[in-house]
Amino acid sequence: MRNIRIGLLGCGTVGEEFAGLLLERRSAIEDVAGISLELVRVAVRDPGKPRSVALDPAVFTTNAYDVVKAEDVDLVVELIGGTSPAGELVTAALNAGKPVVTANKELVASAGPDLFAAADRAGVDLFFEAAAVAAVPLLRPVRESLLAEDVTRVAGIVNGTTNYMLTRMTADGLGFEEALAKAQELGYAEPDASADVEGADAASKIAILASLAFNRSVVADDVSREGITGLLAEDFELAARFGFDIKLLAVAERFTGPPDARGTIGAQVFPALISRDHPLASVRESFNAVFVTTSAAGELMFYGHGAGPRPSASAILGDVVGAAEHLARGTHRRVPVGRPAALRPTRDLVHSYYIRADVDEAPGVLSEVTGVFGRHGVSIRTVDQHGSESQARIVFLTFPAPEHALHDALEELHDLDHVRAVGRVLRIYT
Amino acid sequence: MRNIRIGLLGCGTVGEEFAGLLLERRSAIEDVAGISLELVRVAVRDPGKPRSVALDPAVFTTNAYDVVKAEDVDLVVELIGGTSPAGELVTAALNAGKPVVTANKELVASAGPDLFAAADRAGVDLFFEAAAVAAVPLLRPVRESLLAEDVTRVAGIVNGTTNYMLTRMTADGLGFEEALAKAQELGYAEPDASADVEGADAASKIAILASLAFNRSVVADDVSREGITGLLAEDFELAARFGFDIKLLAVAERFTGPPDARGTIGAQVFPALISRDHPLASVRESFNAVFVTTSAAGELMFYGHGAGPRPSASAILGDVVGAAEHLARGTHRRVPVGRPAALRPTRDLVHSYYIRADVDEAPGVLSEVTGVFGRHGVSIRTVDQHGSESQARIVFLTFPAPEHALHDALEELHDLDHVRAVGRVLRIYT
Repeated sequence: MRNIRIGLLGCGTVGEEFAGLLLERRSAIEDVAGISLELVRVAVRDPGKPRSVALDPAVFTTNAYDVVKAEDVDLVVELIGGTSPAGELVTAALNAGKPVVTANKELVASAGPDLFAAADRAGVDLFFEAAAVAAVPLLRPVRESLLAEDVTRVAGIVNGTTNYMLTRMTADGLGFEEALAKAQELGYAEPDASADVEGADAASKIAILASLAFNRSVVADDVSREGITGLLAEDFELAARFGFDIKLLAVAERFTGPPDARGTIGAQVFPALISRDHPLASVRESFNAVFVTTSAAGELMFYGHGAGPRPSASAILGDVVGAAEHLARGTHRRVPVGRPAALRPTRDLVHSYYIRADVDEAPGVLSEVTGVFGRHGVSIRTVDQHGSESQARIVFLTFPAPEHALHDALEELHDLDHVRAVGRVLRIYT
Repeated sequence: MRNIRIGLLGCGTVGEEFAGLLLERRSAIEDVAGISLELVRVAVRDPGKPRSVALDPAVFTTNAYDVVKAEDVDLVVELIGGTSPAGELVTAALNAGKPVVTANKELVASAGPDLFAAADRAGVDLFFEAAAVAAVPLLRPVRESLLAEDVTRVAGIVNGTTNYMLTRMTADGLGFEEALAKAQELGYAEPDASADVEGADAASKIAILASLAFNRSVVADDVSREGITGLLAEDFELAARFGFDIKLLAVAERFTGPPDARGTIGAQVFPALISRDHPLASVRESFNAVFVTTSAAGELMFYGHGAGPRPSASAILGDVVGAAEHLARGTHRRVPVGRPAALRPTRDLVHSYYIRADVDEAPGVLSEVTGVFGRHGVSIRTVDQHGSESQARIVFLTFPAPEHALHDALEELHDLDHVRAVGRVLRIYT
């Protein structure tokens, strides 16, 4: 049986869990895959730190480059996080002819194309399932099972922290701050939760997914994003009245036509109204799911835990077994290094919208307000008006229109004398 | 670029769709996978029959063995269906050293272990993604991404016909016969729909899934099954009152412990009450989904079209590309030939139950009825009683109990003087 010797970079919460799971599943892996996995070197900052997993003290080193270059290391697992020195270490490992498994979404979403090229030159695997939606087997199906498919859209709930918060705001009527406090209390959110609530984490993940699904390189900076800050309890109530939940979605879409045969790509993260009948609406608590639309297979959804040390360790171990099998057979899977995506500007992307406005209760106001939308080519699908003696709240649901048209209409709306306030505009996902 | 020459067995609806999709996606596959796919031979009953796809008349033959043995065929796609001669043809292709892609669930669910062994001896791929849940990439994630995982349960909605019918019965209050007629009218159900409504189709699929998930060979005959015939509109109303939908589920579970280290396996198909909050409850119309429970990744769900010519063609083409890539690299993926599963008898499987009984409205009847359950160790969780002057309908939801206990309790229940009728007992999926 082929013995594959693993070098691990970083042994924090996920690293410890990975090392533990490797020991736990080792004999089953030998049984099923015919491969023996051995953890031979572990680079950490503090080798003396107590750890939850029983490892031979001799495996620890503080020099990560020693692990990457060691002759007795066949395969490198990078769990340091961040772009540097993780990027340099991964590149060094690939250049040394070693397959790499990483869970580092920040790295893959920013430097992916360079790393893919390095792996390709070296003829080794670079796997990163845990960098997308942790435990959910998603990248492998997309890049293997769906390789022959024409994927037109990838849309998902890819951040567990915000989905937990939105679930509490929907189900328990909590406000944003209360929901955040609850998420922090349960360990779902960091003390600084900005990367989650502002959508940066989701942007990295959708960039990775879009790159594989569309065979074009998309990086995190290509993704326009809005977070969930500023959502009000009343938005959830109003959405519910129309049969919608509110979810933070990461959406990447491919449009056919110029500038090249593969068309243009639009990638966004935003909180959206989604029909309660849509399978994504059933994704609650800290669960994640990704909805993939293809021309032949139709609609597919992949659902599971998007974060957490043990689900992440599971995805990493799955990748390690895959890369080890390839190594044993002298083969590897090439990540197609797509050309940089031609991006469709956000202002040209088309959505339906939910708009909430507080206006004076006066004759002709509704006509004036709807007239603004009409002039900018934004057609109203539904109007819901509730008023008191002096003030009315109007909720509009529109037909699809480009973002620039909506933007121009909103600017004009703000200037109307009878409009007191315009609430957060939300896109409607269909 | 390596050119892989494909021999196709059978060119019915799915075969035509596959041939068309292959032509449609050919250049994209060359672009992404670096492999050229060519359909060189097609075995059909009637070569002169008009077809929706433009193929060179010279590729057609009526002799399937010629295709299997032809020197200019590198890879065989079997779409004949049924167990014979499909089984002999697949075996002959494997023995001739040719990888095989098949969509034949009947064949894989009955003769799987023999075919896996033949593929293993020949050192070639045998792929059958379309035999499980058509377009949903499920087998590959289970046997590759989750290879290092400890899967404890696989449960799914794996038959689109019955899920469509149950959706109509739930949403529109249709009866069984009306829902069946509607499904037949739309082409979701065959004129003879018994394989769907009696659960045989679902049993084949769960046998295939269980074999891969548990690394033990499970065949369709190992699966105990109940169909959806005899479900009444009032069962759907009553289920809804308790917050449940009714779905036809295929469930395979692995229990740890004797008789060997991998424990025993229980496999069943049955209509079940499922909480409306469960992601499987959001699987409506003709969609399918499979819920996989693992020890490290936790709960995963895979959702998509379970049938239809184009979704099936998509899955077949995905497999063909995978097998062609392996062929080009001189490698293959072994299907682990698991030992036959040690089955846990159905009578020992444990569920909660929904029981509906019509009884005389008389003093002491409820106590008498609940006493029967108590004596057999079936604890009642909830009782709902609605009565007229002379008759009452009682609905029980129970705590978990083995099937044999429920069975014995029901026998005794039937014998009680005041019990007029006992309705269809449904399991509750949790």
